Amino acid sequence: MALYVQKFGGTSVGSVERIMAVAERVRKFRENGDDVVVVVSAMSGETNRLIGLASEINDEPSPRELDMLVSTGEQVTIALLAMALQKLGIPATSYTGAQVGIFTDSAHTKARIQRIETDEMREDLNAGRVVVVAGFQGVDEEGNITTLGRGGSDTTGVALAAALKADECQIYTDVDGVYTTDPRVCSKAQRLDSITVEEMLELASLGSKVLQIRAVEFAGKYNVPLRVLSSFEDGGPGTLIVADSDQDEDSMEEPLISGIAFTANEAKLTLLNTPDVPGVAGRILGPIADANIEVDMIVQNVAPAGDYTDFTFTVAKGDYKQTRKILEETVIPDLGGGELRGDDSIVKVSLVGVGMRSHAGIASKMFRVLAQENINIRMVSTSEIKISVVIDEKHLELAVRALHTAFGLDKPSEDD
Amino acid sequence: MALYVQKFGGTSVGSVERIMAVAERVRKFRENGDDVVVVVSAMSGETNRLIGLASEINDEPSPRELDMLVSTGEQVTIALLAMALQKLGIPATSYTGAQVGIFTDSAHTKARIQRIETDEMREDLNAGRVVVVAGFQGVDEEGNITTLGRGGSDTTGVALAAALKADECQIYTDVDGVYTTDPRVCSKAQRLDSITVEEMLELASLGSKVLQIRAVEFAGKYNVPLRVLSSFEDGGPGTLIVADSDQDEDSMEEPLISGIAFTANEAKLTLLNTPDVPGVAGRILGPIADANIEVDMIVQNVAPAGDYTDFTFTVAKGDYKQTRKILEETVIPDLGGGELRGDDSIVKVSLVGVGMRSHAGIASKMFRVLAQENINIRMVSTSEIKISVVIDEKHLELAVRALHTAFGLDKPSEDD
Repeated sequence: MALYVQKFGGTSVGSVERIMAVAERVRKFRENGDDVVVVVSAMSGETNRLIGLASEINDEPSPRELDMLVSTGEQVTIALLAMALQKLGIPATSYTGAQVGIFTDSAHTKARIQRIETDEMREDLNAGRVVVVAGFQGVDEEGNITTLGRGGSDTTGVALAAALKADECQIYTDVDGVYTTDPRVCSKAQRLDSITVEEMLELASLGSKVLQIRAVEFAGKYNVPLRVLSSFEDGGPGTLIVADSDQDEDSMEEPLISGIAFTANEAKLTLLNTPDVPGVAGRILGPIADANIEVDMIVQNVAPAGDYTDFTFTVAKGDYKQTRKILEETVIPDLGGGELRGDDSIVKVSLVGVGMRSHAGIASKMFRVLAQENINIRMVSTSEIKISVVIDEKHLELAVRALHTAFGLDKPSEDD
Repeated sequence: MALYVQKFGGTSVGSVERIMAVAERVRKFRENGDDVVVVVSAMSGETNRLIGLASEINDEPSPRELDMLVSTGEQVTIALLAMALQKLGIPATSYTGAQVGIFTDSAHTKARIQRIETDEMREDLNAGRVVVVAGFQGVDEEGNITTLGRGGSDTTGVALAAALKADECQIYTDVDGVYTTDPRVCSKAQRLDSITVEEMLELASLGSKVLQIRAVEFAGKYNVPLRVLSSFEDGGPGTLIVADSDQDEDSMEEPLISGIAFTANEAKLTLLNTPDVPGVAGRILGPIADANIEVDMIVQNVAPAGDYTDFTFTVAKGDYKQTRKILEETVIPDLGGGELRGDDSIVKVSLVGVGMRSHAGIASKMFRVLAQENINIRMVSTSEIKISVVIDEKHLELAVRALHTAFGLDKPSEDD
């Protein structure tokens, strides 16, 4: 007998049939004697429909009213799911974020959870009821409805699991787990049985968007066992995301690399021959940050003579043109020189794995594999558990597949 | 400078364009220096859409979850209207029933308002803000969302006006006021400038469904000046519904009759030659009430000899067949005799007016007018301010027009 917090996203509750399927799934856990708290998102498409209505009325709607509006999406789902459970003879009660007591700060549309009241949920669970909670939303101390921002339902699930000290937080989604890389790019990709929080964070931020990054951070911080699994297929174990300390670092069986992430959504900009004045990096990136443009990778080389510097960084593809403009009109005049190069036909490929901490030679092996395939590396950056390279867009699939094989991630072939 | 509570129903907020039109209307009052609290319903069609979703999942959804579900309808509208007002530069804040503090009992789907907290609304009004409140909904003392039942937004409007001691509660709808009768049946029908609460109650319950009956009762009880007016046309004065005491009963100018209501939704059943045993009426109507069938008019005649009774009553047309069956299978055997007659091709026509209290002869004039048109009266019932007759369906238009002219309700012709 365990306590599970189960979160179902928008496609998993996207229709009356899907909602009934969720109820059936919950029933199995109840029949097994487990207690269940269910967190649901808005039915797929609903949030966009509501935001569409708002934008027809006011192109800059007040964040408070936007939260008031979109929070109805999950409220519809919790009521329907409670009805579906009741139809199956399972006692269930639904709660909005405000009702269940998910208190947040007042940062509308991107609120942060401050505390969660668990008394009412505990009472329901003790009475044999399934508790159905609206994800993504909360309430501030003044009683205003807030939302946690898009994808925040994952965070709700993990936060409830932490507050209730649940045995596991299960995130049901449209994939059956976390993969070594995107199966659409590399057919040999395989599902990971487990992955550390840190690895998951690197994979998530790099494009394997299975889970919302805040939810993973939360799970790590509060030591919540987190499992990603499919709401469409039955019975798969999914992928368990574990705190780093649970990992047996001495095990020779552990793979060095957990997965390969990539993103095609970046563009690269380089300032060549910039005068190497004090604080040059800040003077380049300051005006870009002022424009609310996020910078990802940064590489700086100082010329041997020491007078000039080459500075390269990446931004999201959508920010490429604006960034060029800022560099040309503000930064280069300010620095008194520099030659601008840009490229938005690039991709970033990253190896992720806690195993690489204790193993030298991962980077050199990565570079060697890419060289063998005649793939030029345009940029490199490294962290403790990640190595990222920027390469030409056209080499994406080739690079991912070659690295996937070279680092032993391929699933056994049917003949093995 | 006055305080208005303005209620807009589903068709008045049925689209983004209509919501903008409501905001424009509110702006005019604000520019005039008036304070405004706006109560809105769900966008037309939305409540039915939500109930449709529920019925696909559970044919007997729990009332609590049904309230959780349908209350999202108004929540969407309040957010959109607040955004529309803000777009026009008018500070506005939206509140759900729970947030604004409309406390009800726990009778889900038909809750009754217990108390209303006004502090927060007053604070907003004093700060120059328009307060936008979700109609139709409240919250019980345990924090469960409740609804007042269909049409309950009118009640919300009147209740807020009473709690805030507003100068007027304005109900905007798709007609421009209360008419002497249905203009579709009688082209000479005219809009009433004012009508008493009692008259309005009789007219509303008889089919002139401009306003929810509970809202009118509420207005009478708390002496709230209530005005019905069009949200589509501009500038019309509508119809003011006033407490009876405001009416100058001595005025010779006051018409005797305020309006003519009718309903074609009834069927008539008669038990002839029933043994006149003690409690016969209860023994006839008891089994019908047990089947949750509502009885409207009741007429009983005792035969001169005193041994037999003729008993006639009306029910809604949809209950006609079931009522026949109950009479045949339960009541007649129980009473030991009786002959059943039924007719579902009837209509009920009613004269309504507080003026008739002090004037004899209204009934005889009504019967004379109908006789002149060769209309047979099948049933009669009277109250202090109403006389209803049941006639054959085919005579409906003829009867309404003849009575409308005879009682001086026709609007002046263009030539006058």
